Amino acid sequence: MYDLIIIGGGPAGLTAAVYALYKRIETLLISEDLGGKVSYHLKLKGFEGHEIITGADVVEKFKRQLEYLRFAHRIDRIAKVEPVNGNFAVLTQSGERLEARAIVVATGATPQRIDVPGERRLIGRGLSYSAVSHAQLFIEREAVLFGSGARALRAAAELANVARHVHLLLPDRGEMESPLGKKLRASSNLTVYENAELREIRGEQFVESIVFQSQGVAREIAVDGLFIELGLIPNSQLVADLGVTDNQGRIVVDCKCATSHPGLFAAGDVTDVFIEQVLICIGEGAKAVLNAYEYLLTQ
Amino acid sequence: MYDLIIIGGGPAGLTAAVYALYKRIETLLISEDLGGKVSYHLKLKGFEGHEIITGADVVEKFKRQLEYLRFAHRIDRIAKVEPVNGNFAVLTQSGERLEARAIVVATGATPQRIDVPGERRLIGRGLSYSAVSHAQLFIEREAVLFGSGARALRAAAELANVARHVHLLLPDRGEMESPLGKKLRASSNLTVYENAELREIRGEQFVESIVFQSQGVAREIAVDGLFIELGLIPNSQLVADLGVTDNQGRIVVDCKCATSHPGLFAAGDVTDVFIEQVLICIGEGAKAVLNAYEYLLTQ
Repeated sequence: MYDLIIIGGGPAGLTAAVYALYKRIETLLISEDLGGKVSYHLKLKGFEGHEIITGADVVEKFKRQLEYLRFAHRIDRIAKVEPVNGNFAVLTQSGERLEARAIVVATGATPQRIDVPGERRLIGRGLSYSAVSHAQLFIEREAVLFGSGARALRAAAELANVARHVHLLLPDRGEMESPLGKKLRASSNLTVYENAELREIRGEQFVESIVFQSQGVAREIAVDGLFIELGLIPNSQLVADLGVTDNQGRIVVDCKCATSHPGLFAAGDVTDVFIEQVLICIGEGAKAVLNAYEYLLTQ
Repeated sequence: MYDLIIIGGGPAGLTAAVYALYKRIETLLISEDLGGKVSYHLKLKGFEGHEIITGADVVEKFKRQLEYLRFAHRIDRIAKVEPVNGNFAVLTQSGERLEARAIVVATGATPQRIDVPGERRLIGRGLSYSAVSHAQLFIEREAVLFGSGARALRAAAELANVARHVHLLLPDRGEMESPLGKKLRASSNLTVYENAELREIRGEQFVESIVFQSQGVAREIAVDGLFIELGLIPNSQLVADLGVTDNQGRIVVDCKCATSHPGLFAAGDVTDVFIEQVLICIGEGAKAVLNAYEYLLTQ
Protein backbone atom coordinates (compact mmCIF):
# COMPACT_ATOMS: atom_id res chain seq x y z
CA MET A 1 0.00 0.00 0.00
CA TYR A 2 1.44 3.34 -1.08
CA ASP A 3 0.55 6.55 0.68
CA LEU A 4 0.12 8.30 -2.63
CA ILE A 5 -0.10 7.31 -6.29
CA ILE A 6 0.27 10.12 -8.81
CA ILE A 7 -1.06 9.40 -12.29
CA GLY A 8 0.42 11.38 -15.18
CA GLY A 9 3.94 12.58 -16.01
CA GLY A 10 3.31 16.09 -17.37
CA PRO A 11 4.26 19.26 -15.49
CA ALA A 12 1.56 18.83 -12.80
CA GLY A 13 2.29 15.14 -12.17
CA LEU A 14 6.07 15.61 -12.20
CA THR A 15 5.89 18.49 -9.72
CA ALA A 16 3.55 16.54 -7.49
CA ALA A 17 5.94 13.57 -7.51
CA VAL A 18 9.02 15.64 -6.66
CA TYR A 19 7.21 17.44 -3.82
CA ALA A 20 5.83 14.16 -2.49
CA LEU A 21 9.28 12.57 -2.42
CA TYR A 22 10.67 15.69 -0.76
CA LYS A 23 7.95 15.36 1.89
CA ARG A 24 8.95 11.69 2.37
CA ILE A 25 5.56 10.38 1.36
CA GLU A 26 5.60 6.76 0.16
CA THR A 27 4.86 7.64 -3.45
CA LEU A 28 4.59 6.08 -6.88
CA LEU A 29 4.30 8.05 -10.11
CA ILE A 30 2.66 6.12 -12.93
CA SER A 31 2.80 7.63 -16.39
CA GLU A 32 3.30 6.74 -20.02
CA ASP A 33 6.09 9.25 -20.40
CA LEU A 34 7.75 12.09 -18.51
CA GLY A 35 7.43 15.72 -19.54
CA GLY A 36 3.94 15.89 -21.06
CA LYS A 37 3.10 18.65 -23.46
CA VAL A 38 5.98 20.83 -22.38
CA SER A 39 7.54 19.43 -25.50
CA TYR A 40 4.81 21.03 -27.61
CA HIS A 41 6.53 24.19 -28.72
CA LEU A 42 5.24 26.10 -31.69
CA LYS A 43 7.64 27.10 -34.43
CA LEU A 44 6.80 29.31 -37.38
CA LYS A 45 8.49 29.37 -40.75
CA GLY A 46 11.57 31.59 -40.75
CA PHE A 47 11.02 32.52 -37.14
CA GLU A 48 12.72 31.20 -34.06
CA GLY A 49 10.03 31.61 -31.39
CA HIS A 50 11.29 33.41 -28.32
CA GLU A 51 9.16 32.20 -25.47
CA ILE A 52 10.24 33.79 -22.22
CA ILE A 53 8.18 31.55 -20.07
CA THR A 54 7.99 27.90 -20.82
CA GLY A 55 8.55 26.40 -17.40
CA ALA A 56 10.55 23.83 -19.35
CA ASP A 57 13.61 24.39 -17.15
CA VAL A 58 11.69 23.50 -14.01
CA VAL A 59 10.16 20.47 -15.65
CA GLU A 60 13.55 19.34 -16.95
CA LYS A 61 15.01 19.60 -13.45
CA PHE A 62 12.15 17.59 -11.94
CA LYS A 63 12.40 14.99 -14.68
CA ARG A 64 16.08 14.41 -13.99
CA GLN A 65 15.31 14.13 -10.29
CA LEU A 66 12.79 11.39 -10.95
CA GLU A 67 14.85 9.53 -13.51
CA TYR A 68 17.47 9.25 -10.82
CA LEU A 69 14.94 7.87 -8.33
CA ARG A 70 13.79 5.09 -10.60
CA PHE A 71 12.00 3.15 -7.89
CA ALA A 72 9.49 6.00 -7.63
CA HIS A 73 8.37 5.84 -11.24
CA ARG A 74 6.61 3.22 -13.29
CA ILE A 75 5.82 3.44 -16.99
CA ASP A 76 2.29 2.27 -17.56
CA ARG A 77 -1.19 3.47 -18.43
CA ILE A 78 -3.97 3.47 -15.86
CA ALA A 79 -7.27 1.94 -16.86
CA LYS A 80 -9.24 2.64 -13.72
CA VAL A 81 -9.20 4.06 -10.20
CA GLU A 82 -11.53 2.32 -7.73
CA PRO A 83 -12.35 3.23 -4.13
CA VAL A 84 -11.66 0.36 -1.69
CA ASN A 85 -12.51 0.78 2.01
CA GLY A 86 -11.50 4.43 2.21
CA ASN A 87 -8.40 3.78 0.09
CA PHE A 88 -7.95 3.35 -3.66
CA ALA A 89 -7.06 0.55 -6.07
CA VAL A 90 -5.39 1.56 -9.30
CA LEU A 91 -5.65 -0.86 -12.20
CA THR A 92 -2.98 -0.59 -14.86
CA GLN A 93 -3.41 -1.47 -18.49
CA SER A 94 -0.75 -4.15 -18.09
CA GLY A 95 -3.01 -5.88 -15.54
CA GLU A 96 -1.44 -4.82 -12.26
CA ARG A 97 -3.41 -3.68 -9.25
CA LEU A 98 -1.78 -1.21 -6.88
CA GLU A 99 -3.21 0.34 -3.72
CA ALA A 100 -2.83 3.79 -2.20
CA ARG A 101 -4.34 5.89 0.57
CA ALA A 102 -4.58 8.95 -1.69
CA ILE A 103 -4.45 9.70 -5.42
CA VAL A 104 -3.44 12.69 -7.52
CA VAL A 105 -4.80 12.52 -11.08
CA ALA A 106 -2.77 14.66 -13.49
CA THR A 107 -3.48 12.97 -16.80
CA GLY A 108 -3.96 16.17 -18.82
CA ALA A 109 -6.21 16.79 -21.79
CA THR A 110 -5.99 16.09 -25.50
CA PRO A 111 -6.89 18.76 -28.05
CA GLN A 112 -9.83 17.97 -30.27
CA ARG A 113 -8.44 17.27 -33.74
CA ILE A 114 -10.29 17.51 -37.05
CA ASP A 115 -8.34 14.88 -39.00
CA VAL A 116 -7.70 16.68 -42.27
CA PRO A 117 -4.64 16.09 -44.49
CA GLY A 118 -1.56 17.84 -43.15
CA GLU A 119 -2.84 18.16 -39.59
CA ARG A 120 -0.74 15.60 -37.73
CA ARG A 121 2.35 16.34 -39.76
CA LEU A 122 2.33 20.08 -39.04
CA ILE A 123 1.56 20.09 -35.30
CA GLY A 124 4.03 22.47 -33.69
CA ARG A 125 5.18 23.62 -37.13
CA GLY A 126 2.77 26.48 -37.59
CA LEU A 127 -0.21 24.55 -36.22
CA SER A 128 -1.21 25.00 -32.59
CA TYR A 129 -4.23 24.04 -30.47
CA SER A 130 -3.68 26.73 -27.86
CA ALA A 131 -3.88 30.42 -28.70
CA VAL A 132 -3.51 31.31 -25.02
CA SER A 133 0.00 29.80 -25.23
CA HIS A 134 1.12 30.89 -28.68
CA ALA A 135 -0.83 33.91 -29.92
CA GLN A 136 2.11 36.23 -29.13
CA LEU A 137 4.23 34.56 -31.81
CA PHE A 138 1.93 36.12 -34.43
CA ILE A 139 2.88 39.76 -33.88
CA GLU A 140 2.71 41.32 -37.37
CA ARG A 141 1.91 37.93 -38.88
CA GLU A 142 -1.13 36.42 -40.54
CA ALA A 143 -3.09 33.72 -38.71
CA VAL A 144 -6.08 31.49 -39.22
CA LEU A 145 -8.28 30.47 -36.36
CA PHE A 146 -10.63 27.52 -36.87
CA GLY A 147 -13.14 26.93 -34.11
CA SER A 148 -16.39 27.97 -32.53
CA GLY A 149 -17.80 28.81 -29.15
CA ALA A 150 -16.46 31.13 -26.46
CA ARG A 151 -13.02 29.54 -26.49
CA ALA A 152 -12.49 30.27 -30.19
CA LEU A 153 -13.78 33.85 -29.93
CA ARG A 154 -11.49 34.55 -27.01
CA ALA A 155 -8.57 33.14 -28.98
CA ALA A 156 -9.53 35.26 -32.02
CA ALA A 157 -9.64 38.39 -29.85
CA GLU A 158 -6.18 37.66 -28.44
CA LEU A 159 -4.81 37.05 -31.94
CA ALA A 160 -6.47 40.19 -33.36
CA ASN A 161 -4.66 42.23 -30.69
CA VAL A 162 -1.26 41.30 -32.10
CA ALA A 163 -1.55 39.77 -35.59
CA ARG A 164 -1.50 41.69 -38.86
CA HIS A 165 -4.61 39.83 -39.94
CA VAL A 166 -6.78 37.06 -38.52
CA HIS A 167 -9.00 34.79 -40.62
CA LEU A 168 -11.68 33.42 -38.32
CA LEU A 169 -13.21 30.24 -39.75
CA LEU A 170 -16.42 29.26 -38.01
CA PRO A 171 -17.74 25.75 -38.67
CA ASP A 172 -21.13 27.06 -37.45
CA ARG A 173 -22.47 30.49 -36.48
CA GLY A 174 -20.84 30.03 -33.10
CA GLU A 175 -21.32 32.84 -30.63
CA MET A 176 -20.90 35.74 -33.04
CA GLU A 177 -23.97 37.46 -31.58
CA SER A 178 -22.33 37.66 -28.14
CA PRO A 179 -20.73 41.00 -27.07
CA LEU A 180 -17.27 39.63 -27.88
CA GLY A 181 -18.51 38.30 -31.24
CA LYS A 182 -19.87 41.74 -32.16
CA LYS A 183 -16.62 43.39 -31.10
CA LEU A 184 -14.72 40.94 -33.33
CA ARG A 185 -16.94 41.64 -36.35
CA ALA A 186 -16.01 45.31 -35.98
CA SER A 187 -12.23 44.58 -35.96
CA SER A 188 -10.47 45.96 -39.02
CA ASN A 189 -7.87 43.17 -39.06
CA LEU A 190 -10.22 40.20 -38.77
CA THR A 191 -12.29 38.47 -41.45
CA VAL A 192 -15.08 36.06 -40.50
CA TYR A 193 -15.94 33.09 -42.71
CA GLU A 194 -19.15 31.38 -41.66
CA ASN A 195 -20.14 27.73 -42.28
CA ALA A 196 -16.47 27.11 -42.94
CA GLU A 197 -15.12 23.64 -43.53
CA LEU A 198 -11.37 23.15 -43.24
CA ARG A 199 -10.21 20.69 -45.93
CA GLU A 200 -6.44 20.63 -45.86
CA ILE A 201 -3.41 22.18 -44.23
CA ARG A 202 -0.55 22.64 -46.69
CA GLY A 203 3.16 23.24 -46.31
CA GLU A 204 6.51 21.48 -46.66
CA GLN A 205 8.19 21.99 -43.30
CA PHE A 206 5.73 24.53 -41.86
CA VAL A 207 2.13 25.59 -42.44
CA GLU A 208 2.08 27.68 -45.62
CA SER A 209 -1.57 27.73 -46.61
CA ILE A 210 -4.95 26.27 -45.79
CA VAL A 211 -7.70 25.03 -48.07
CA PHE A 212 -11.27 25.54 -46.91
CA GLN A 213 -14.79 25.98 -48.13
CA SER A 214 -17.09 28.74 -46.89
CA GLN A 215 -20.65 29.53 -48.05
CA GLY A 216 -20.18 27.02 -50.86
CA VAL A 217 -16.97 28.60 -52.19
CA ALA A 218 -13.62 26.75 -52.05
CA ARG A 219 -10.53 28.86 -51.26
CA GLU A 220 -6.86 28.56 -50.48
CA ILE A 221 -5.18 31.29 -48.45
CA ALA A 222 -1.51 31.71 -47.55
CA VAL A 223 -0.91 32.10 -43.79
CA ASP A 224 1.92 32.07 -41.25
CA GLY A 225 0.10 29.69 -38.99
CA LEU A 226 -3.14 28.09 -37.90
CA PHE A 227 -4.91 27.58 -34.59
CA ILE A 228 -7.52 24.88 -34.16
CA GLU A 229 -9.62 25.78 -31.13
CA LEU A 230 -12.30 23.14 -30.75
CA GLY A 231 -11.61 22.53 -27.09
CA LEU A 232 -9.68 20.03 -25.01
CA ILE A 233 -10.81 16.53 -24.17
CA PRO A 234 -9.84 15.76 -20.55
CA ASN A 235 -8.19 12.38 -20.02
CA SER A 236 -10.50 11.54 -17.13
CA GLN A 237 -11.92 8.18 -18.21
CA LEU A 238 -10.09 6.44 -15.37
CA VAL A 239 -12.32 8.19 -12.80
CA ALA A 240 -15.48 8.37 -14.92
CA ASP A 241 -17.43 6.20 -12.44
CA LEU A 242 -16.58 8.25 -9.35
CA GLY A 243 -18.97 11.17 -9.92
CA VAL A 244 -16.20 13.78 -9.79
CA THR A 245 -16.40 15.08 -13.39
CA ASP A 246 -18.53 17.82 -14.98
CA ASN A 247 -20.57 17.52 -18.19
CA GLN A 248 -17.43 18.18 -20.26
CA GLY A 249 -15.60 15.34 -18.50
CA ARG A 250 -13.29 17.67 -16.55
CA ILE A 251 -12.52 16.71 -12.95
CA VAL A 252 -14.13 19.31 -10.68
CA VAL A 253 -11.73 20.57 -8.00
CA ASP A 254 -11.74 23.27 -5.36
CA CYS A 255 -8.96 25.86 -5.13
CA LYS A 256 -6.85 23.31 -3.25
CA CYS A 257 -7.15 20.68 -5.98
CA ALA A 258 -9.45 18.42 -3.92
CA THR A 259 -12.31 16.60 -5.63
CA SER A 260 -15.54 15.80 -3.78
CA HIS A 261 -14.20 12.27 -3.13
CA PRO A 262 -12.03 12.23 0.05
CA GLY A 263 -8.41 11.39 -0.74
CA LEU A 264 -8.82 11.98 -4.49
CA PHE A 265 -7.02 15.07 -5.83
CA ALA A 266 -6.49 16.33 -9.36
CA ALA A 267 -4.26 18.94 -10.97
CA GLY A 268 -3.60 20.46 -14.36
CA ASP A 269 -5.46 20.29 -17.64
CA VAL A 270 -7.64 17.34 -16.59
CA THR A 271 -9.44 19.67 -14.13
CA ASP A 272 -11.96 22.47 -14.59
CA VAL A 273 -9.37 25.11 -13.64
CA PHE A 274 -8.14 27.47 -16.36
CA ILE A 275 -4.68 26.18 -17.25
CA GLU A 276 -2.82 25.31 -20.48
CA GLN A 277 0.33 26.97 -19.14
CA VAL A 278 3.24 24.96 -17.84
CA LEU A 279 3.92 27.27 -14.90
CA ILE A 280 0.30 27.11 -13.78
CA CYS A 281 0.32 23.30 -14.04
CA ILE A 282 3.46 23.24 -11.90
CA GLY A 283 1.75 25.35 -9.22
CA GLU A 284 -1.38 23.20 -9.33
CA GLY A 285 0.68 20.01 -9.02
CA ALA A 286 2.42 21.39 -5.94
CA LYS A 287 -0.90 22.48 -4.44
CA ALA A 288 -2.50 19.06 -5.04
CA VAL A 289 0.31 17.19 -3.34
CA LEU A 290 0.51 19.54 -0.34
CA ASN A 291 -3.21 19.10 0.11
CA ALA A 292 -2.89 15.32 -0.27
CA TYR A 293 -0.13 15.43 2.34
CA GLU A 294 -2.47 17.36 4.63
CA TYR A 295 -5.12 14.71 4.09
CA LEU A 296 -2.67 11.89 4.88
CA LEU A 297 -1.40 13.69 8.00
CA THR A 298 -4.85 14.03 9.49
CA GLN A 299 -6.14 10.53 8.62
CA MET B 1 -4.47 55.00 -17.79
CA TYR B 2 -2.75 51.61 -17.66
CA ASP B 3 -4.51 48.44 -18.67
CA LEU B 4 -3.15 46.69 -15.62
CA ILE B 5 -1.36 47.65 -12.42
CA ILE B 6 0.25 44.81 -10.48
CA ILE B 7 0.99 45.53 -6.83
CA GLY B 8 3.76 43.50 -5.17
CA GLY B 9 7.14 42.20 -6.35
CA GLY B 10 7.25 38.71 -4.83
CA PRO B 11 6.97 35.53 -6.92
CA ALA B 12 3.26 36.05 -7.73
CA GLY B 13 3.64 39.73 -8.69
CA LEU B 14 6.82 39.16 -10.69
CA THR B 15 5.27 36.31 -12.65
CA ALA B 16 2.13 38.33 -13.29
CA ALA B 17 4.26 41.24 -14.59
CA VAL B 18 6.33 39.09 -16.92
CA TYR B 19 3.24 37.36 -18.34
CA ALA B 20 1.44 40.70 -18.75
CA LEU B 21 4.35 42.19 -20.67
CA TYR B 22 4.57 39.05 -22.77
CA LYS B 23 0.88 39.46 -23.58
CA ARG B 24 1.54 43.10 -24.56
CA ILE B 25 -0.75 44.49 -21.88
CA GLU B 26 0.03 48.13 -20.95
CA THR B 27 1.31 47.22 -17.47
CA LEU B 28 2.95 48.79 -14.45
CA LEU B 29 4.39 46.79 -11.56
CA ILE B 30 4.57 48.73 -8.30
CA SER B 31 6.51 47.19 -5.44
CA GLU B 32 8.90 48.03 -2.66
CA ASP B 33 11.41 45.46 -3.82
CA LEU B 34 11.71 42.60 -6.29
CA GLY B 35 11.91 38.98 -5.25
CA GLY B 36 9.79 38.88 -2.10
CA LYS B 37 10.30 36.15 0.40
CA VAL B 38 12.06 33.87 -2.04
CA SER B 39 15.09 35.16 -0.23
CA TYR B 40 13.84 33.62 3.02
CA HIS B 41 15.80 30.43 3.03
CA LEU B 42 16.26 28.52 6.24
CA LYS B 43 19.74 27.45 7.28
CA LEU B 44 20.56 25.26 10.24
CA LYS B 45 23.79 25.14 12.18
CA GLY B 46 26.32 22.84 10.56
CA PHE B 47 23.92 21.92 7.82
CA GLU B 48 23.78 23.20 4.29
CA GLY B 49 20.08 22.92 3.49
CA HIS B 50 19.45 21.08 0.25
CA GLU B 51 16.14 22.38 -1.01
CA ILE B 52 15.30 20.78 -4.32
CA ILE B 53 12.45 23.10 -5.03
CA THR B 54 12.81 26.76 -4.34
CA GLY B 55 11.45 28.25 -7.53
CA ALA B 56 14.23 30.77 -6.98
CA ASP B 57 15.61 30.13 -10.46
CA VAL B 58 12.33 31.08 -12.09
CA VAL B 59 11.99 34.17 -9.93
CA GLU B 60 15.59 35.20 -10.66
CA LYS B 61 14.93 34.89 -14.37
CA PHE B 62 11.76 36.99 -14.15
CA LYS B 63 13.50 39.59 -12.01
CA ARG B 64 16.22 40.05 -14.60
CA GLN B 65 13.60 40.35 -17.30
CA LEU B 66 11.89 43.18 -15.42
CA GLU B 67 15.07 44.95 -14.42
CA TYR B 68 15.81 45.12 -18.10
CA LEU B 69 12.37 46.64 -18.80
CA ARG B 70 12.76 49.41 -16.27
CA PHE B 71 9.84 51.48 -17.51
CA ALA B 72 7.47 48.73 -16.43
CA HIS B 73 8.47 48.87 -12.77
CA ARG B 74 8.15 51.55 -10.11
CA ILE B 75 9.47 51.29 -6.57
CA ASP B 76 6.82 52.55 -4.20
CA ARG B 77 4.32 51.40 -1.60
CA ILE B 78 0.59 51.49 -2.28
CA ALA B 79 -1.64 53.09 0.33
CA LYS B 80 -4.99 52.46 -1.28
CA VAL B 81 -6.87 51.06 -4.25
CA GLU B 82 -10.11 52.87 -5.10
CA PRO B 83 -12.77 52.01 -7.68
CA VAL B 84 -13.41 54.87 -10.14
CA ASN B 85 -16.13 54.50 -12.81
CA GLY B 86 -15.48 50.84 -13.50
CA ASN B 87 -11.71 51.40 -13.38
CA PHE B 88 -9.29 51.79 -10.46
CA ALA B 89 -7.19 54.55 -8.92
CA VAL B 90 -4.07 53.48 -7.07
CA LEU B 91 -2.68 55.91 -4.48
CA THR B 92 0.99 55.54 -3.68
CA GLN B 93 2.59 56.41 -0.38
CA SER B 94 4.67 59.04 -2.15
CA GLY B 95 1.43 60.83 -3.10
CA GLU B 96 0.98 59.75 -6.71
CA ARG B 97 -2.32 58.68 -8.20
CA LEU B 98 -2.26 56.18 -11.06
CA GLU B 99 -5.19 54.70 -12.95
CA ALA B 100 -5.76 51.26 -14.43
CA ARG B 101 -8.57 49.22 -15.95
CA ALA B 102 -7.64 46.15 -13.89
CA ILE B 103 -5.55 45.37 -10.81
CA VAL B 104 -3.64 42.34 -9.56
CA VAL B 105 -2.87 42.52 -5.82
CA ALA B 106 0.09 40.31 -4.87
CA THR B 107 1.30 41.98 -1.70
CA GLY B 108 1.91 38.80 0.27
CA ALA B 109 1.58 38.19 3.99
CA THR B 110 3.77 38.87 6.99
CA PRO B 111 4.30 36.19 9.64
CA GLN B 112 3.01 37.06 13.10
CA ARG B 113 6.07 37.70 15.28
CA ILE B 114 6.27 37.47 19.07
CA ASP B 115 9.03 40.05 19.62
CA VAL B 116 11.28 38.21 22.04
CA PRO B 117 15.06 38.72 22.27
CA GLY B 118 16.90 36.91 19.49
CA GLU B 119 13.90 36.63 17.19
CA ARG B 120 14.71 39.15 14.45
CA ARG B 121 18.39 38.31 14.50
CA LEU B 122 17.90 34.58 13.96
CA ILE B 123 15.25 34.60 11.22
CA GLY B 124 16.41 32.18 8.55
CA ARG B 125 19.20 30.99 10.85
CA GLY B 126 17.36 28.18 12.58
CA LEU B 127 14.15 30.19 12.99
CA SER B 128 11.34 29.79 10.46
CA TYR B 129 7.69 30.84 10.29
CA SER B 130 6.70 28.16 7.81
CA ALA B 131 6.88 24.47 8.66
CA VAL B 132 5.21 23.60 5.37
CA SER B 133 8.31 25.02 3.65
CA HIS B 134 11.09 23.88 5.97
CA ALA B 135 10.04 20.90 8.09
CA GLN B 136 12.03 18.51 5.88
CA LEU B 137 15.31 20.09 6.98
CA PHE B 138 14.73 18.57 10.44
CA ILE B 139 15.14 14.94 9.48
CA GLU B 140 16.85 13.36 12.51
CA ARG B 141 17.06 16.77 14.22
CA GLU B 142 15.40 18.33 17.24
CA ALA B 143 12.85 21.10 16.71
CA VAL B 144 10.64 23.39 18.73
CA LEU B 145 7.28 24.47 17.49
CA PHE B 146 5.65 27.47 19.16
CA GLY B 147 2.06 28.15 18.18
CA SER B 148 -1.56 27.20 18.60
CA GLY B 149 -4.57 26.41 16.50
CA ALA B 150 -4.94 24.08 13.55
CA ARG B 151 -2.00 25.59 11.70
CA ALA B 152 0.42 24.83 14.54
CA LEU B 153 -0.87 21.28 15.06
CA ARG B 154 -0.53 20.55 11.38
CA ALA B 155 3.02 21.86 11.45
CA ALA B 156 3.80 19.76 14.55
CA ALA B 157 2.47 16.64 12.81
CA GLU B 158 4.65 17.30 9.76
CA LEU B 159 7.70 17.84 11.96
CA ALA B 160 6.98 14.74 14.06
CA ASN B 161 7.03 12.67 10.86
CA VAL B 162 10.67 13.51 10.24
CA ALA B 163 12.35 15.03 13.31
CA ARG B 164 14.10 13.08 16.06
CA HIS B 165 12.09 15.00 18.62
CA VAL B 166 9.55 17.84 18.57
CA HIS B 167 8.87 20.15 21.52
CA LEU B 168 5.40 21.59 21.01
CA LEU B 169 4.95 24.81 23.01
CA LEU B 170 1.32 25.85 23.25
CA PRO B 171 0.63 29.38 24.51
CA ASP B 172 -2.90 28.15 25.32
CA ARG B 173 -4.61 24.76 25.22
CA GLY B 174 -5.03 25.23 21.50
CA GLU B 175 -6.84 22.44 19.69
CA MET B 176 -5.25 19.52 21.52
CA GLU B 177 -8.67 17.88 21.91
CA SER B 178 -9.14 17.68 18.13
CA PRO B 179 -8.44 14.31 16.41
CA LEU B 180 -5.05 15.59 15.23
CA GLY B 181 -4.26 16.94 18.73
CA LYS B 182 -4.99 13.52 20.24
CA LYS B 183 -2.87 11.80 17.61
CA LEU B 184 0.00 14.17 18.47
CA ARG B 185 -0.27 13.49 22.20
CA ALA B 186 0.22 9.82 21.41
CA SER B 187 3.42 10.46 19.38
CA SER B 188 6.52 9.03 21.05
CA ASN B 189 8.80 11.75 19.65
CA LEU B 190 6.71 14.78 20.65
CA THR B 191 6.45 16.55 24.01
CA VAL B 192 3.64 19.02 24.67
CA TYR B 193 4.18 22.00 27.00
CA GLU B 194 0.94 23.79 27.83
CA ASN B 195 0.53 27.47 28.84
CA ALA B 196 3.99 28.00 27.44
CA GLU B 197 5.52 31.42 27.17
CA LEU B 198 8.54 31.83 24.91
CA ARG B 199 11.02 34.26 26.52
CA GLU B 200 14.17 34.22 24.44
CA ILE B 201 15.82 32.60 21.44
CA ARG B 202 19.54 32.05 22.00
CA GLY B 203 22.44 31.37 19.67
CA GLU B 204 25.48 33.05 18.14
CA GLN B 205 25.08 32.50 14.43
CA PHE B 206 22.21 30.03 14.55
CA VAL B 207 19.44 29.07 16.98
CA GLU B 208 21.06 26.98 19.72
CA SER B 209 18.51 26.99 22.52
CA ILE B 210 15.25 28.53 23.63
CA VAL B 211 14.19 29.84 27.03
CA PHE B 212 10.55 29.41 27.98
CA GLN B 213 8.21 29.03 30.88
CA SER B 214 5.55 26.34 31.09
CA GLN B 215 3.15 25.59 33.99
CA GLY B 216 5.12 28.08 36.12
CA VAL B 217 8.49 26.41 35.51
CA ALA B 218 11.29 28.19 33.58
CA ARG B 219 13.43 26.04 31.29
CA GLU B 220 16.10 26.25 28.64
CA ILE B 221 16.36 23.51 26.03
CA ALA B 222 18.96 23.02 23.33
CA VAL B 223 17.44 22.64 19.84
CA ASP B 224 18.48 22.62 16.19
CA GLY B 225 15.77 25.04 15.21
CA LEU B 226 12.50 26.73 16.02
CA PHE B 227 9.25 27.29 14.18
CA ILE B 228 6.87 30.06 15.19
CA GLU B 229 3.45 29.24 13.78
CA LEU B 230 1.05 31.94 14.85
CA GLY B 231 -0.29 32.56 11.38
CA LEU B 232 0.29 35.00 8.59
CA ILE B 233 -1.05 38.55 8.46
CA PRO B 234 -2.13 39.30 4.88
CA ASN B 235 -0.95 42.66 3.54
CA SER B 236 -4.42 43.57 2.34
CA GLN B 237 -4.98 46.97 3.99
CA LEU B 238 -4.91 48.67 0.59
CA VAL B 239 -8.20 46.98 -0.38
CA ALA B 240 -9.74 46.85 3.11
CA ASP B 241 -12.67 49.09 2.04
CA LEU B 242 -13.64 47.05 -1.00
CA GLY B 243 -15.43 44.19 0.77
CA VAL B 244 -13.21 41.53 -0.79
CA THR B 245 -11.49 40.20 2.36
CA ASP B 246 -12.51 37.50 4.85
CA ASN B 247 -12.48 37.82 8.65
CA GLN B 248 -8.76 37.08 8.72
CA GLY B 249 -8.10 39.88 6.24
CA ARG B 250 -7.24 37.53 3.38
CA ILE B 251 -8.49 38.48 -0.08
CA VAL B 252 -11.11 35.95 -1.13
CA VAL B 253 -10.56 34.67 -4.67
CA ASP B 254 -12.06 31.99 -6.86
CA CYS B 255 -9.91 29.31 -8.54
CA LYS B 256 -9.06 31.82 -11.27
CA CYS B 257 -7.78 34.45 -8.81
CA ALA B 258 -10.76 36.77 -9.34
CA THR B 259 -12.24 38.66 -6.37
CA SER B 260 -15.93 39.54 -6.20
CA HIS B 261 -15.07 43.04 -7.50
CA PRO B 262 -14.92 43.04 -11.35
CA GLY B 263 -11.43 43.82 -12.61
CA LEU B 264 -9.78 43.20 -9.23
CA PHE B 265 -7.62 40.07 -9.06
CA ALA B 266 -5.30 38.76 -6.35
CA ALA B 267 -2.62 36.10 -6.19
CA GLY B 268 -0.27 34.54 -3.67
CA ASP B 269 -0.08 34.72 0.11
CA VAL B 270 -2.43 37.72 0.37
CA THR B 271 -5.31 35.45 -0.74
CA ASP B 272 -7.26 32.72 1.01
CA VAL B 273 -5.67 30.01 -1.17
CA PHE B 274 -3.24 27.60 0.49
CA ILE B 275 0.18 28.81 -0.62
CA GLU B 276 3.51 29.61 1.11
CA GLN B 277 5.42 27.91 -1.67
CA VAL B 278 7.22 29.84 -4.34
CA LEU B 279 6.18 27.53 -7.18
CA ILE B 280 2.53 27.79 -6.18
CA CYS B 281 2.77 31.60 -6.00
CA ILE B 282 4.27 31.60 -9.50
CA GLY B 283 1.36 29.56 -10.83
CA GLU B 284 -1.19 31.77 -9.07
CA GLY B 285 0.46 34.93 -10.45
CA ALA B 286 0.25 33.52 -13.97
CA LYS B 287 -3.38 32.52 -13.46
CA ALA B 288 -4.33 35.96 -12.11
CA VAL B 289 -2.83 37.78 -15.06
CA LEU B 290 -4.32 35.45 -17.67
CA ASN B 291 -7.70 35.98 -16.08
CA ALA B 292 -7.14 39.75 -15.95
CA TYR B 293 -6.21 39.60 -19.63
CA GLU B 294 -9.45 37.74 -20.31
CA TYR B 295 -11.34 40.45 -18.44
CA LEU B 296 -9.63 43.22 -20.43
CA LEU B 297 -10.26 41.41 -23.73
CA THR B 298 -13.98 41.16 -23.16
CA GLN B 299 -14.54 44.68 -21.76
